[in-house]
Amino acid sequence: MKPIRAGVLGATGAVGQRFVQLLDANPWFEITALAASERSVGRPYHEACTWRLSADSPASVRDIVVKPCAPGLDCDLVFSALPSSVAGPVEIEMAAAGYGVLSNASAHRMDPDVPLLIPEVNPEHLALLDTQRANRGWDKGFIVTDPNCSTVGMTLALKPLHDAFGISRVIVTTMQALSGAGYPGVPSLDIIDNVVPFIRNEEDKLIDEPRKLLGALRPGSDGIEMAEVTISPSCNRVATRDGHMEVMSIEFRHKPTREAIVEALASFPSKPYQMGCPSAVDPTIIVRSEDDRPQPVLDRNVGNGMAITVGRIRPCEVFDYKLVTLSHNTLRGAASGSVLNAEIMAAQGMLS
Amino acid sequence: MKPIRAGVLGATGAVGQRFVQLLDANPWFEITALAASERSVGRPYHEACTWRLSADSPASVRDIVVKPCAPGLDCDLVFSALPSSVAGPVEIEMAAAGYGVLSNASAHRMDPDVPLLIPEVNPEHLALLDTQRANRGWDKGFIVTDPNCSTVGMTLALKPLHDAFGISRVIVTTMQALSGAGYPGVPSLDIIDNVVPFIRNEEDKLIDEPRKLLGALRPGSDGIEMAEVTISPSCNRVATRDGHMEVMSIEFRHKPTREAIVEALASFPSKPYQMGCPSAVDPTIIVRSEDDRPQPVLDRNVGNGMAITVGRIRPCEVFDYKLVTLSHNTLRGAASGSVLNAEIMAAQGMLS
Amino acid sequence: MKPIRAGVLGATGAVGQRFVQLLDANPWFEITALAASERSVGRPYHEACTWRLSADSPASVRDIVVKPCAPGLDCDLVFSALPSSVAGPVEIEMAAAGYGVLSNASAHRMDPDVPLLIPEVNPEHLALLDTQRANRGWDKGFIVTDPNCSTVGMTLALKPLHDAFGISRVIVTTMQALSGAGYPGVPSLDIIDNVVPFIRNEEDKLIDEPRKLLGALRPGSDGIEMAEVTISPSCNRVATRDGHMEVMSIEFRHKPTREAIVEALASFPSKPYQMGCPSAVDPTIIVRSEDDRPQPVLDRNVGNGMAITVGRIRPCEVFDYKLVTLSHNTLRGAASGSVLNAEIMAAQGMLS
Amino acid sequence: MKPIRAGVLGATGAVGQRFVQLLDANPWFEITALAASERSVGRPYHEACTWRLSADSPASVRDIVVKPCAPGLDCDLVFSALPSSVAGPVEIEMAAAGYGVLSNASAHRMDPDVPLLIPEVNPEHLALLDTQRANRGWDKGFIVTDPNCSTVGMTLALKPLHDAFGISRVIVTTMQALSGAGYPGVPSLDIIDNVVPFIRNEEDKLIDEPRKLLGALRPGSDGIEMAEVTISPSCNRVATRDGHMEVMSIEFRHKPTREAIVEALASFPSKPYQMGCPSAVDPTIIVRSEDDRPQPVLDRNVGNGMAITVGRIRPCEVFDYKLVTLSHNTLRGAASGSVLNAEIMAAQGMLS
Repeated sequence: MKPIRAGVLGATGAVGQRFVQLLDANPWFEITALAASERSVGRPYHEACTWRLSADSPASVRDIVVKPCAPGLDCDLVFSALPSSVAGPVEIEMAAAGYGVLSNASAHRMDPDVPLLIPEVNPEHLALLDTQRANRGWDKGFIVTDPNCSTVGMTLALKPLHDAFGISRVIVTTMQALSGAGYPGVPSLDIIDNVVPFIRNEEDKLIDEPRKLLGALRPGSDGIEMAEVTISPSCNRVATRDGHMEVMSIEFRHKPTREAIVEALASFPSKPYQMGCPSAVDPTIIVRSEDDRPQPVLDRNVGNGMAITVGRIRPCEVFDYKLVTLSHNTLRGAASGSVLNAEIMAAQGMLS
Repeated sequence: MKPIRAGVLGATGAVGQRFVQLLDANPWFEITALAASERSVGRPYHEACTWRLSADSPASVRDIVVKPCAPGLDCDLVFSALPSSVAGPVEIEMAAAGYGVLSNASAHRMDPDVPLLIPEVNPEHLALLDTQRANRGWDKGFIVTDPNCSTVGMTLALKPLHDAFGISRVIVTTMQALSGAGYPGVPSLDIIDNVVPFIRNEEDKLIDEPRKLLGALRPGSDGIEMAEVTISPSCNRVATRDGHMEVMSIEFRHKPTREAIVEALASFPSKPYQMGCPSAVDPTIIVRSEDDRPQPVLDRNVGNGMAITVGRIRPCEVFDYKLVTLSHNTLRGAASGSVLNAEIMAAQGMLS
Repeated sequence: MKPIRAGVLGATGAVGQRFVQLLDANPWFEITALAASERSVGRPYHEACTWRLSADSPASVRDIVVKPCAPGLDCDLVFSALPSSVAGPVEIEMAAAGYGVLSNASAHRMDPDVPLLIPEVNPEHLALLDTQRANRGWDKGFIVTDPNCSTVGMTLALKPLHDAFGISRVIVTTMQALSGAGYPGVPSLDIIDNVVPFIRNEEDKLIDEPRKLLGALRPGSDGIEMAEVTISPSCNRVATRDGHMEVMSIEFRHKPTREAIVEALASFPSKPYQMGCPSAVDPTIIVRSEDDRPQPVLDRNVGNGMAITVGRIRPCEVFDYKLVTLSHNTLRGAASGSVLNAEIMAAQGMLS
Repeated sequence: MKPIRAGVLGATGAVGQRFVQLLDANPWFEITALAASERSVGRPYHEACTWRLSADSPASVRDIVVKPCAPGLDCDLVFSALPSSVAGPVEIEMAAAGYGVLSNASAHRMDPDVPLLIPEVNPEHLALLDTQRANRGWDKGFIVTDPNCSTVGMTLALKPLHDAFGISRVIVTTMQALSGAGYPGVPSLDIIDNVVPFIRNEEDKLIDEPRKLLGALRPGSDGIEMAEVTISPSCNRVATRDGHMEVMSIEFRHKPTREAIVEALASFPSKPYQMGCPSAVDPTIIVRSEDDRPQPVLDRNVGNGMAITVGRIRPCEVFDYKLVTLSHNTLRGAASGSVLNAEIMAAQGMLS
């Protein structure tokens, strides 16, 4: 039997299904509760949920009866795939009731006492949880969030470069996959033979979240000092199923050589991998030298969708260097990311 | 009968077919010659050419027998849709033989005595033709080129802003349509559910061509002073049939208000329209205020594909302003652009 | 001024927008009323409607204030683009109030006293209107319906063949475009890199509607004798924007030669064209001899989307002949079809 | 070390890459030779081949130097992914030189003494090899072929039904994936927003190959008595990457109930699975009851791409029953199929 009993909030949606798929195959977590909206409550999961990731939902969860998204779930921690509109109060309620909440929703990401976590980037931010529990009067419950799907690939690529050379300014243009909008999400008539140069609320997240992720834990763990990096994003939806591409022009404080950039990216260490987390991979960052990579169909699944790929590293005529990143938006950028957050907590004894 | 007798070089290819389609419907030009490679020579056009723009090629050209791409064509000027690999010497040979050459190929675009022309942007550059003929000892022949398809939309948007406020630096990321690669062009397995972050030779053109287009004619018309604008492009191929999207962050020498930018774009005058050129449209630049525009399927055909659309004009966190442009790559960005070049020459009596 | 004052019911939806686009350009009809659901009522059309057919809705309708779908509209006839779920009673109410109703909805198509009309196929069925008015006690109002979008292409191809050779059995497999599902319609994640082998309620329509269209008006015009043609349909959704492809194997009562089939299709006369209806085209049926036609991107717009294309006419190993048809589903198969229904009525003085 | 030393002919092409990918992971075969055309000979595989199946080619084959497609290869059997235009004589030459040839090419499929093999369908046809060697004077070499990719799914679905109820006539319409055309294959401009109702030479294969596969071995193993099944195919290319959909209407000699059809399909035994072949799966045929299945993105990979999915089993208005099948065209329908052919031979001691 697997050691940790987990539930999923919003289990029937697009990201919720990814959580179910991943946790079913994860050696550390056992799915013991599935929760969703009113409409699904009381029905076995395979009836409540139109499974869209493969032919069938995992056999182990088919007969779990869906519960409401509220305390009373038979599990120790919950992965939240709730829509942002409802996640805010529900996650608070769950944490107050003693559940660990690993959230993929945006509601609490920028709360000063909530870790916004990519385990390879800022594992030390988990120290905020002491402050969080003190602030909120929680006993053992907590909220840990993962970033927006478009933030993840970008920040993973920036982290080793920021550490080594200091990043001052970034202009980033994204080409984001359809699964980022959930289901039903983007109507087919809006995207076949088309590009939509806008994703609601997305650019604000790309401006702020990397600054928190790259920021320093304040003395006493009472907050995060945002990194001094200015980011200008332009977000676009394109006709790919999975995999967010991000084109960046980067200005550095200390000008590196191209070789130094490649070296910093390719040798980026993974703390969760070193600690034995089953979802962590090594390398986390794949650097490619071909002219025409990364590409979603070729590169999005490397490292079970947990590695990111960086290519086209070359001088920028305006800033210092240009490059392109690709990350799997519903794995690295969503469900697998939250699972890895839980794993690094478990590896450090924070889930017992 | 139409006044000007025109031929098409490379008439069976993707851009060649667009020339045929456009000239057939143009009130000023009559197609009297079609030329293509060895394989097609001697065959009626409708047999030599697999028409791919609509159900059938125009009735008026079906029976024209294809000739070699060399002097001897029964026409006064030729529109060149030749691949760049062969365009260089052929276009020279044609001009030397007395033909006017309106070229869509890149071979001579950056030659100091060859006008690189967008009639709304730099009609005065046509004065280079005197130098060109003097330099090369040509009597009445000439070469006038139009820019690369991705240059056109970008430069049309930059021109009124550069005139009004001075542009110093631009970072541009493109999402370009499949028709820009010709036929057969991009294999379907390379683009369904995919994005390719690379287009061979494209970025160099985006760095240089706008600087020539925005540049000033030197005294004595003996060349172009390149504009002092630094451009950093990143070019991507996406799964759209037609229409190049370009996302730009722009740094100005004199900071405008957003209203001033909109006003400069929306009131951009069209000299060819004022002169009565049949392919010119007014306005040339459509400014849209919706969050999610321009989009290829909605906006690429405005003004018969000769207007460009600019949207998402907003402050840039890093530079001054960001915006998105869309232009039809095989109309505005290729065949229609060359036809308009010929029209403004005709309107000024330069083709008689 | 145009002679006939027309309204559109469901004017903000996908088919409703097509009606608006077509009527705006039609010489016989003037749009004097636009009606839609609660949410849109009281707002100018350009605010109530997110226009999805091109850059902008026609200038002439932008400021028309949307009304409820009920009597009181300032017009003589209405084109109904209502969803089938609400069309039934609303269309009855409008007809009872004296409006002519040209409906694209399925609600009344199979009513015995309602003409299901393709003007080139069964114009004589309009004689049912006398029975309809008598049955229902209507003074000048009426309901005339057009068939389901997948019925139209199929039936236009079958009509000349049925008249000449008698059709006994047809097995038909469709590959239908996304616009047939309206907006938002098919989610992009359901169709990018995918085919869905099912369209709800579609196959039943393909079984029944052609039999009524090909049927004979009973003596005394009191109904339609259904044609004795057995049809087995399989309907599929594919990733095309517009244009329904239909692959048919046909068994004839009298075996024709291939030449006779081509001749019957290519010479099919158009009564509405002969009567001068502005939306009618000639030929209505384009027969192509290439191996690989028809194709949506090449052939869907022939004859302003009012002609259908038939290709791949060849012997069937099981029945007698196989062929492929293509028709534009929202023009020929929906809005333009209804407009042509109105035109042939006008041409016969039935709208005065 | 794996017991059987295998080579791949045409190793750099689309199907060749699938062979390499599969054999690398197969417990019974070791890749000891890779062969391709002139252009690739003498280069390490990872340089000769632009890998298109995932991020990188398998590490174990990267440095194998590509050899010519001729005797002299260091292996015991070869998998042939040669284009049909060259496969004929090369495969003969290899077999004559003592190699076992497992071919995916069409050249020898219909030769009377060559087994056309689907191991679950007609394993007894391997007895033809005695006749083949006697006829051709071969010592230990042989040729065994697998069917065309569109034949496989269809025939697997028909086999249990033909055995149980006798099939007399089938009308089948296919919607085939792009990978079936190899690389570069279908140009993107031919398929984005499009369907092509034609695949060269495909329909002939669908008429003949199932009749051989379902046929009986003649007494004395000197040939195959073709099954008396008449098939009328219509083949279409659609915008999917992998997975051929096939819509069938079937006439039976003995009319089954729907339940009997489901039972026959779902209980279809797999001889290669029973014999322990590592590529075989059980069940081979997945029967689905949802209205809208199978679908390529959901169902093509079931059973590692070796199972087929059958859905929409329902009465046919014209014949007896209609259904839809889906099979992975480059796995079940090509490379994995050939590997399974080799496995069942190995399991029976025919490769020693």
